[in-house]
Amino acid sequence: MSTLEVGKKLVALCREGKNAEAMQTLYDPNIVSVEAMSMPGGSPESTGVAACLEKGKMWREGHEIHSAHVEGPFPNDDRFAVFFTYDVTPKATGKRMTMNEVAVYTVKGGKIVREEFYYEM
Amino acid sequence: MSTLEVGKKLVALCREGKNAEAMQTLYDPNIVSVEAMSMPGGSPESTGVAACLEKGKMWREGHEIHSAHVEGPFPNDDRFAVFFTYDVTPKATGKRMTMNEVAVYTVKGGKIVREEFYYEM
Repeated sequence: MSTLEVGKKLVALCREGKNAEAMQTLYDPNIVSVEAMSMPGGSPESTGVAACLEKGKMWREGHEIHSAHVEGPFPNDDRFAVFFTYDVTPKATGKRMTMNEVAVYTVKGGKIVREEFYYEM
Repeated sequence: MSTLEVGKKLVALCREGKNAEAMQTLYDPNIVSVEAMSMPGGSPESTGVAACLEKGKMWREGHEIHSAHVEGPFPNDDRFAVFFTYDVTPKATGKRMTMNEVAVYTVKGGKIVREEFYYEM
């Protein structure tokens, strides 16, 4: 699959809320995932599909998701970007808010080998 | 200036349509600019503020810009992403359209040293 084809599949799955399926089918086993923030003493980087699935699960458990809007994919060479807009209520605060983030994915051999998230806390 | 401060200045200037001023004040003289597409035989990469200004000028001359919407900056370490939405009519086609692109900027020593554009043609 080309980079653009991988991007289109990922966006289609995320639009259906099937983010975990996107990871299971499109991610390389050694995917490197880079967050913008990390817990004190933690690393923003993690490796492997299991770690990505766990991060997604924790995020969903921590937020009531009212809606998700996904724009893209926007390609450049072996990468593509996606723009996510979430209407959520974090369970920790109970305050409904809009969260935006840009994700940039790198594709090698038809699989996503790196994802980087850009957002402000 | 921190990466986030540079990002906020760039976004503020782009929202006022002062893209050239953003380049002149925030870009490193050796800025590397990477497009998603290039002309046949051309390179997607160019170097220097003058080349960036020229690209911007050509783009503005080739499009009637009805409105521009700028979201961000979204930081991650020494980079930040911006999401642009343009409502334009390309002079070559006369057909009004919406163009989206993600830009990722890398900051070193308070200056933008690299910009990468993600978009689909």
